[in-house]
Amino acid sequence: MNSFGKILRLTSFGESHGLAVGGVLDGFPAGIDINTDFIRTEMQRRKPGQSALSTERNEADEVQFISGIFEGKSTGAPIAFLIYNKDKKSSDYDALKDVFRPSHADYTYQEKYGIRDHRGGGRSSARETAVRVAAGAMAKWALKQHQIEINGYVSQVGNIRCPLDYTQLNLEDTDSNPVRCPHNETAQAMEQYILTLKEKGDTIGGTITCVIKGCKPGLGAPLYAKLHAELGAAMLGINAVKGFDYGSGFSDLDKTGSVLNDTMRIENETLTMESNHSGGIQGGISNGSDIYFRVAFKPVATIKQVQQTVNKNGENITIHAEGRHDPCVLPRAVPIVEAMAALVMLDHFLMAQTTRML
Amino acid sequence: MNSFGKILRLTSFGESHGLAVGGVLDGFPAGIDINTDFIRTEMQRRKPGQSALSTERNEADEVQFISGIFEGKSTGAPIAFLIYNKDKKSSDYDALKDVFRPSHADYTYQEKYGIRDHRGGGRSSARETAVRVAAGAMAKWALKQHQIEINGYVSQVGNIRCPLDYTQLNLEDTDSNPVRCPHNETAQAMEQYILTLKEKGDTIGGTITCVIKGCKPGLGAPLYAKLHAELGAAMLGINAVKGFDYGSGFSDLDKTGSVLNDTMRIENETLTMESNHSGGIQGGISNGSDIYFRVAFKPVATIKQVQQTVNKNGENITIHAEGRHDPCVLPRAVPIVEAMAALVMLDHFLMAQTTRML
Amino acid sequence: MNSFGKILRLTSFGESHGLAVGGVLDGFPAGIDINTDFIRTEMQRRKPGQSALSTERNEADEVQFISGIFEGKSTGAPIAFLIYNKDKKSSDYDALKDVFRPSHADYTYQEKYGIRDHRGGGRSSARETAVRVAAGAMAKWALKQHQIEINGYVSQVGNIRCPLDYTQLNLEDTDSNPVRCPHNETAQAMEQYILTLKEKGDTIGGTITCVIKGCKPGLGAPLYAKLHAELGAAMLGINAVKGFDYGSGFSDLDKTGSVLNDTMRIENETLTMESNHSGGIQGGISNGSDIYFRVAFKPVATIKQVQQTVNKNGENITIHAEGRHDPCVLPRAVPIVEAMAALVMLDHFLMAQTTRML
Amino acid sequence: MNSFGKILRLTSFGESHGLAVGGVLDGFPAGIDINTDFIRTEMQRRKPGQSALSTERNEADEVQFISGIFEGKSTGAPIAFLIYNKDKKSSDYDALKDVFRPSHADYTYQEKYGIRDHRGGGRSSARETAVRVAAGAMAKWALKQHQIEINGYVSQVGNIRCPLDYTQLNLEDTDSNPVRCPHNETAQAMEQYILTLKEKGDTIGGTITCVIKGCKPGLGAPLYAKLHAELGAAMLGINAVKGFDYGSGFSDLDKTGSVLNDTMRIENETLTMESNHSGGIQGGISNGSDIYFRVAFKPVATIKQVQQTVNKNGENITIHAEGRHDPCVLPRAVPIVEAMAALVMLDHFLMAQTTRML
Repeated sequence: MNSFGKILRLTSFGESHGLAVGGVLDGFPAGIDINTDFIRTEMQRRKPGQSALSTERNEADEVQFISGIFEGKSTGAPIAFLIYNKDKKSSDYDALKDVFRPSHADYTYQEKYGIRDHRGGGRSSARETAVRVAAGAMAKWALKQHQIEINGYVSQVGNIRCPLDYTQLNLEDTDSNPVRCPHNETAQAMEQYILTLKEKGDTIGGTITCVIKGCKPGLGAPLYAKLHAELGAAMLGINAVKGFDYGSGFSDLDKTGSVLNDTMRIENETLTMESNHSGGIQGGISNGSDIYFRVAFKPVATIKQVQQTVNKNGENITIHAEGRHDPCVLPRAVPIVEAMAALVMLDHFLMAQTTRML
Repeated sequence: MNSFGKILRLTSFGESHGLAVGGVLDGFPAGIDINTDFIRTEMQRRKPGQSALSTERNEADEVQFISGIFEGKSTGAPIAFLIYNKDKKSSDYDALKDVFRPSHADYTYQEKYGIRDHRGGGRSSARETAVRVAAGAMAKWALKQHQIEINGYVSQVGNIRCPLDYTQLNLEDTDSNPVRCPHNETAQAMEQYILTLKEKGDTIGGTITCVIKGCKPGLGAPLYAKLHAELGAAMLGINAVKGFDYGSGFSDLDKTGSVLNDTMRIENETLTMESNHSGGIQGGISNGSDIYFRVAFKPVATIKQVQQTVNKNGENITIHAEGRHDPCVLPRAVPIVEAMAALVMLDHFLMAQTTRML
Repeated sequence: MNSFGKILRLTSFGESHGLAVGGVLDGFPAGIDINTDFIRTEMQRRKPGQSALSTERNEADEVQFISGIFEGKSTGAPIAFLIYNKDKKSSDYDALKDVFRPSHADYTYQEKYGIRDHRGGGRSSARETAVRVAAGAMAKWALKQHQIEINGYVSQVGNIRCPLDYTQLNLEDTDSNPVRCPHNETAQAMEQYILTLKEKGDTIGGTITCVIKGCKPGLGAPLYAKLHAELGAAMLGINAVKGFDYGSGFSDLDKTGSVLNDTMRIENETLTMESNHSGGIQGGISNGSDIYFRVAFKPVATIKQVQQTVNKNGENITIHAEGRHDPCVLPRAVPIVEAMAALVMLDHFLMAQTTRML
Repeated sequence: MNSFGKILRLTSFGESHGLAVGGVLDGFPAGIDINTDFIRTEMQRRKPGQSALSTERNEADEVQFISGIFEGKSTGAPIAFLIYNKDKKSSDYDALKDVFRPSHADYTYQEKYGIRDHRGGGRSSARETAVRVAAGAMAKWALKQHQIEINGYVSQVGNIRCPLDYTQLNLEDTDSNPVRCPHNETAQAMEQYILTLKEKGDTIGGTITCVIKGCKPGLGAPLYAKLHAELGAAMLGINAVKGFDYGSGFSDLDKTGSVLNDTMRIENETLTMESNHSGGIQGGISNGSDIYFRVAFKPVATIKQVQQTVNKNGENITIHAEGRHDPCVLPRAVPIVEAMAALVMLDHFLMAQTTRML
């Protein structure tokens, strides 16, 4: 249950306030450069404390590789890595030992396991997403060598939406502002809004849009491993995610088949889709167009306001959260979304190599 | 890639115009009644030709059981079953042998496999969903014996939305109209709209909302098998699905954490969630509240209008579809959504039994 | 638990006295000829009633294909097939409804599932191996196109052993006698011995040796999916198998490392192993030499003698078996061993295609 | 390919001369004591340098736990752990960088992956078995709490066999001598023989017998996850293992069905098997009798003698091994065999909990 993927398989471990979080990436193809600079950059994009919009927890988030790499290249053996937890303040959580925080996983873990590491949310902490970014960075780099590029950006915060779609944006601008929305005017409005909420101790959600370019036709599978179902499961496996859609998704439900069908044309012996409401996937299999999807995030559950709740002893209590948390996770979630997408895409890239006997 | 589930595992097979479609349900618990009346009822809800809203293809959709049942009960052995394809009109498809229909899986299958059974869409046909309904009916019945009830309904067609949420509706009314929307006024508007489009040879999508009641806390898993991620993957694996959300989902992105958090109270020694924006799942694990989610369907890709497209020889052509198709799949998709949900829930019900040594 | 394999995955179903046994072969590569003549031949080699050495049950064992094949070739979709049970004499088993036969699976099934299809052994019957032979025949044919040949033969019955090893035998002679031992003199002694036991209502076991030629270096995996571990698991999954070894195995335990090490030489730019105690596999990965292994079968548990046993009501009883059974399963098990080996080899052939990004 | 198990799943990583080897044990039941003293004892039984019979490599083999444990108990989260590689002498291996050692995995890894960490055998080193012992110790302890005990011992070295079977031995004596054979006279002969070979720079193999007591009826699965097939795969996945048998195995092939059948009796309302040629497993499922099996190990491939071989450049060369190796791995392999058996048994213990809806 802590592994993800079919041929390329990430197994993740670790709690927020344990020694480290980490992962084992198995099935990674042999002979690929492990680009530590690139991995570090990706980790920086996710790490806490990077702007006024994120938690003050201070973690270097250096990835220590344990295995699977020889002379800078993957060997085909499992790649294990650790990310140490340095700036732990477990004592912040002493008061929460027996408390079930609202809309957190405290109560459900207790019910399921009968035991729970409460410190910093334990296993349920979003700190685990560092593992995904590290593994995803390796996958992303491998895909880049085969011309597959994955770019996410914040497309909505609260009810502030980016007015342009991805085809009208320059996705290289995404990291030019702390919100990670490539439309600067919108980014500023989002930032302002988040900071206002932060002062009130409140939090907000929104959407990330992610675009995958350069994927050839033929990745995915017809029935239960449809490419978009795998991407969807990957996204819904990220903390705080409440929804996923791709292509026309939830947005174009008012449009009919005659409007949404993507017609094809041959020009100069090249097949072109004249539109892309399919989101680059038909029958669960990539069609060569851009793959794009949206991920909906709820607001962070930890708010710095007084809340009513209950504890393990069955008492009604009030709490006022102390821990360090983001007023809005979306800016930091962009590399997580990209990482999970990369793991799915590389897994399917490899699986596609088994469709015929070579 | 044609199997679904972890401990409870459905393997599906068959093409639209082959001898039969069918499945093997493995890991189904021993000693459960196989209620063939219930299964038949569920099959009727999905089967074609049930109203003016659905394709005229005429299939009895009787389920023939091959194995795994003894004296009316499951034995723990795999339950295999067939649903014969009787009303095939493969010749309808002769003209389509080399054609890539717009927004269908024709092109992507050809690219992936280099070979393709074109008749009726072959493996990519929604006919395969009969298999899911049959298997899901067994799971649904097993869950019912443990007080878990699953009910879906059509909540949106085009831009016609059901004005009430599920808590305000009587879900027993769902099957009282051909649209399967339990709000009769809305159902009539939807039906009218679909029939209008049908006359134009056009198609429309919408959403199904599904509600799971009676699930105890503790089903699901923290990281990569989150209960909602598994439900999401199951739904995104249904033909024509473009999106999934649960709880507050995409709809409440404008609301802050202080509004969306579900506070808890103890009353009479019973824990109650005072709201349910979490959709019954926290940290990937059920919390005892109702689980509810939405599934977005695109319009059926086959429209009875002239469309431009290409064929296998790289020529631009026009087509005018002949096959028999639904103007709107949503009414027939309700039992499919419920079936997939039932498979996920029973799988997690069984997995939850492994959390501790009993 | 009723599926076998990783990428190439056989899901099996059916009971001895149900309508049919059958399977779904998923992940089979696209574009491969499905050679029905070859499959029929393989089925004939396993089928009952082929000689005085086998049970009199009379089954045509025709394979009815349901899906996954188009114009004689695999499409990449799951290949489902049925083998009908025609010559059932379930009434033979009425007396055994509540009986736990010695060294059969009756008691353990009852304990595990609390319910049991007793007719002909139900799910535990060796009739299920027909499914394996059918699926294996497809895999075997696919491998043949890539120069991988799999040949098994009976190397021991009771204490009658074939005096030559496989390198000294002509494996094309295997099917020239009913015992399937390519050393004719030995075959005759084995046959005589089996017939003598048959008259006494007794049964006997032995070993099958299987040889895989033409496998290139690089198939298998280092740790938990070692090629020989997968072959071993496949063989131990066949009814009545009690042991597996490969290469030097159990036979050369008295020899030291200096004797057993396979030294390598380069001659004419070609690497040659100067011996093959490794059995063609080193570190879990094929090395290009012949792969060979032995499988030990116990005697059939059903004997036509009076035996003491117990029944479901906790009573001590005596039974005298009536059903139709083989005095020695080994001749009919040769194609089963080959089939399971073929499934493992094709699975690893495909997996090897994922070792690098192509 | 580096994970083992179904519900209980060990993912292993690390190379002989990297920073550490380690593992992630996922699916381990919640609320179980993690007995570090017991784990340490098991690690000591495997660790190098424990007697004149084993390699001089000096490793403390302390297990550092990273996650999944809270206040001394398992939480249901994945348990990750590291075992550091301290006494590495990688320079010993410089001369071997491009050499393919006879009967090692050097050549096959190179062929499969095109790249290879040659230091100490890299991923193919038996050092990885430390991971199995650590994980197995946790499983073993959990099983002990449910009265399932697993004991292995060396039953054969070269052609020196223990003259008694396990029912005639006191298995508590196993660790009383460095060979780990509970029959002292035999142990002394084995020890003498190994030391003689060690002086010659030669190596020898043999068998380990393993006994599992206290397993209730009902563990295992009928077809492809037969309890003995899973045990067999686990054993064949251990370095140097060439064979596996259980119950009557290869040893009693000369006996007929009437001799080998295990008849049952009811006495005092208790069912007893009057013999145990089945090895405690019938139809793939435990029957309540002792489970016992044998594992055949080949001699260690590294011998301290001059050997002919080839290198990566395609040249014929001679080598004289320098690294530190065991003249006979069997004494140290006893805890490895037990560990792998414990992982299989706990996995099936948990799976058995899913057979019915509880």
